[in-house]
Amino acid sequence: MAVQISIPKGTRDFLPAVMARRNFIFDTLKDVFRLYGYRQIETPAMENLSTLLGKYGEEGDKLLFRILNSGNFLQDVTKEELQTGTPASLSSKLCEKGLRYDLTVPLARFVVMYRNELTFPFKRFQIQPVWRADRPQKGRYREFYQCDVDIIGSDSLLNEYELIKIIGEVFKRLNLKVTIKLNNRKILTGLAEMCGHPDKLIPLTVAIDKLEKAGKENVISELENVGFSTDQIHMLFSFLDISKASAGFKEIHHQLLQQNLPEILKKGLDELNEIFRYLSSESLSCSVKTDFSLARGLSYYTGTILEVVSDEIPFGSICGGGRYDDLTGIFGFPGLSGIGMSFGADRIYDIMDQLNRFGEKNISGTKVLVTSFGGDSLQMAMDTASLFREKNIATELYTEHQAKMKKQFGYANALNIPYVIVIGETEMANKQLTLKNMITGEQRTAPVNEIVDILLS
Amino acid sequence: MAVQISIPKGTRDFLPAVMARRNFIFDTLKDVFRLYGYRQIETPAMENLSTLLGKYGEEGDKLLFRILNSGNFLQDVTKEELQTGTPASLSSKLCEKGLRYDLTVPLARFVVMYRNELTFPFKRFQIQPVWRADRPQKGRYREFYQCDVDIIGSDSLLNEYELIKIIGEVFKRLNLKVTIKLNNRKILTGLAEMCGHPDKLIPLTVAIDKLEKAGKENVISELENVGFSTDQIHMLFSFLDISKASAGFKEIHHQLLQQNLPEILKKGLDELNEIFRYLSSESLSCSVKTDFSLARGLSYYTGTILEVVSDEIPFGSICGGGRYDDLTGIFGFPGLSGIGMSFGADRIYDIMDQLNRFGEKNISGTKVLVTSFGGDSLQMAMDTASLFREKNIATELYTEHQAKMKKQFGYANALNIPYVIVIGETEMANKQLTLKNMITGEQRTAPVNEIVDILLS
Repeated sequence: MAVQISIPKGTRDFLPAVMARRNFIFDTLKDVFRLYGYRQIETPAMENLSTLLGKYGEEGDKLLFRILNSGNFLQDVTKEELQTGTPASLSSKLCEKGLRYDLTVPLARFVVMYRNELTFPFKRFQIQPVWRADRPQKGRYREFYQCDVDIIGSDSLLNEYELIKIIGEVFKRLNLKVTIKLNNRKILTGLAEMCGHPDKLIPLTVAIDKLEKAGKENVISELENVGFSTDQIHMLFSFLDISKASAGFKEIHHQLLQQNLPEILKKGLDELNEIFRYLSSESLSCSVKTDFSLARGLSYYTGTILEVVSDEIPFGSICGGGRYDDLTGIFGFPGLSGIGMSFGADRIYDIMDQLNRFGEKNISGTKVLVTSFGGDSLQMAMDTASLFREKNIATELYTEHQAKMKKQFGYANALNIPYVIVIGETEMANKQLTLKNMITGEQRTAPVNEIVDILLS
Repeated sequence: MAVQISIPKGTRDFLPAVMARRNFIFDTLKDVFRLYGYRQIETPAMENLSTLLGKYGEEGDKLLFRILNSGNFLQDVTKEELQTGTPASLSSKLCEKGLRYDLTVPLARFVVMYRNELTFPFKRFQIQPVWRADRPQKGRYREFYQCDVDIIGSDSLLNEYELIKIIGEVFKRLNLKVTIKLNNRKILTGLAEMCGHPDKLIPLTVAIDKLEKAGKENVISELENVGFSTDQIHMLFSFLDISKASAGFKEIHHQLLQQNLPEILKKGLDELNEIFRYLSSESLSCSVKTDFSLARGLSYYTGTILEVVSDEIPFGSICGGGRYDDLTGIFGFPGLSGIGMSFGADRIYDIMDQLNRFGEKNISGTKVLVTSFGGDSLQMAMDTASLFREKNIATELYTEHQAKMKKQFGYANALNIPYVIVIGETEMANKQLTLKNMITGEQRTAPVNEIVDILLS
């Protein structure tokens, strides 16, 4: 009688083949982050709700997974509260902890808690799962990994330059063609000012952020609805079009500075220009372009805003981030600025999968299966496996030595193990091994050291 | 005004230096597991409570962290249930999900769910955190990593042999001296039979499992309390002493088989003997010995039981496991046997820390800091950092280029970065770099390629 078993909706198990590919992505990110001097940290899955609540808006608060207090969780709740309480009021009585929702709020909390132990600028990366009680749908999960890299306590635009190089290096190693889009919050603020609506920065950016998805017509009518005149909208779009121009940014920058623009807009353009100047001597493996409509929901960004999209498959953003002037103000320590970005491992996985970009050579796995058939040959099989492992060759010994040869070869086939060793009477007598290449079907009998050389080559 | 911030009790943040050392342990485990052909999987942090409840005993059920249902979690609870419910009855109405408590129950669930996709014997490893609402105390946390390695669907004692070799290899790489203790559940069953109390297996093993901690006197009085006579206790201890004897197990085995022992006890001794026979041709870097009192709480073990202790610091078990005949029966699929073990990363960390065994060479970190002072030298600093990274040298560019030299050197010192590059006017004119070794204080000015050679050596 089988028990009905399942896992919570929106969560996933990762089987070995998928896990190996995911590890390839995570390891690539870690290697590149470390190459640039970022250091890994980890924070607990559970945070106090007082740390999490109010940081992600009202909608975000609802999406937090809350942990029921352990022991007698009813002890601080009166009968009356139980009768009259709403889910929101009661949940705060029943729960003190929640699962982390992202890695940014934990980072802010971490930086404030350990500010006296950390050396600034603090360059950290963090790769851990986060949990959101979102409605699960295709490509959206309730548990997923975030891969964040941030530098805290530095205003220098050299950090932007280095993060862009990190993006270039990551996607070069992953063999994906991407474009990095750049904008600056100051440009958006300046645009609102230029159009005569400095107070309408939020509706303006909400509208133009949709340009790609919703189309120009819809954005125009949304802008009209919030009070932009036809002239203002025209002025806005002429400006947005500039960022799509094919000229290098240096020329665009030069041209724009001739115009009578709001100071803050000029400042934003200057910052972008400095980043491009830093990049000018680099041979990046991806293209970098400006997009003045890029807002990424604005959130807490105050300077540079960046986003990465695939050139090969339209898939939305696969990496995004920006500069913030005040990460830790929410925890009572204002003034720590920084810049960071987050790689979307699930989307990167899906793109690589669709494009067949997981070179199987990159995916570590068992290199050779040593079959075993008991009797006298077993000791030789054991010794062979030991020797291979001493040479750092990932080796399996088939431990069910009563199994037929067909079954043992079937095991190697099913698991894509590329080589199989067979030790029969002749091999034992001659102190040789027979190596079968499972891909080409070729077979070779030779002394152990020659076989080792083949496996290592 | 600083907000009071903290993390939930029993949980931890891992700062970069500790994280790097933890990674050294995790990476060592992963490397060795893969060398032996084990494949990584991951399962969700949350499991359905129906999967978890009843698997860890009544006490375990209480230690599960439960996730409050999202949305209106009160909708399925009547007013009456709210008034009269106990924490236990109400929590099952309020919560459908819990955080995983170990990696064994999720493995059983996983094997049953994917039994038609997996290839057996299924060799998997899994390194993920687990959560227990235990009372936090020194060395006991509410969130901690388990590092499990199991093979499912094989009765062969070659698996025991391979797991013992994995233990040897892991602790050799971690530079720790350990002893592996072996026992067999069949021996314990046979001992109860031999003493005339086949029904008292559990109290017998509970008592002798404490031998090391509580001492012989206490164990004797506990055995008397549950009905063992002085003669039976004497018989028991003579037998337990055998496993402490200095003779090789082959001789012990031979001797014991002359006696009139229960069949099941003989079977257990035969199995141990077979494992020692497999090991006889190996040069293990740790000692392996039998301990007939070893029970590890018995739990679900049916054959081999193993435990690893440090030879250098008394610290309890740092790895343990055993063979089970029926992992998946709890989920309706009986008959899948296997063997597995779990490494205690936190205890291993503490031992290595106390013994100062983290070779800093093993701990990956930034190799060189390129200082930068703006102006004309900045471009050369940027180019130098790029070049180093192309050579796969972990490099930091100090992005705050207005900072004084003292501050930049202080940064390298604080983060234990072993080398610093300085580019002054002379260096620029001569196209050279000055490299300072931060450990020896030595300084050297040379062309870039020579500096690269030093950094790579």
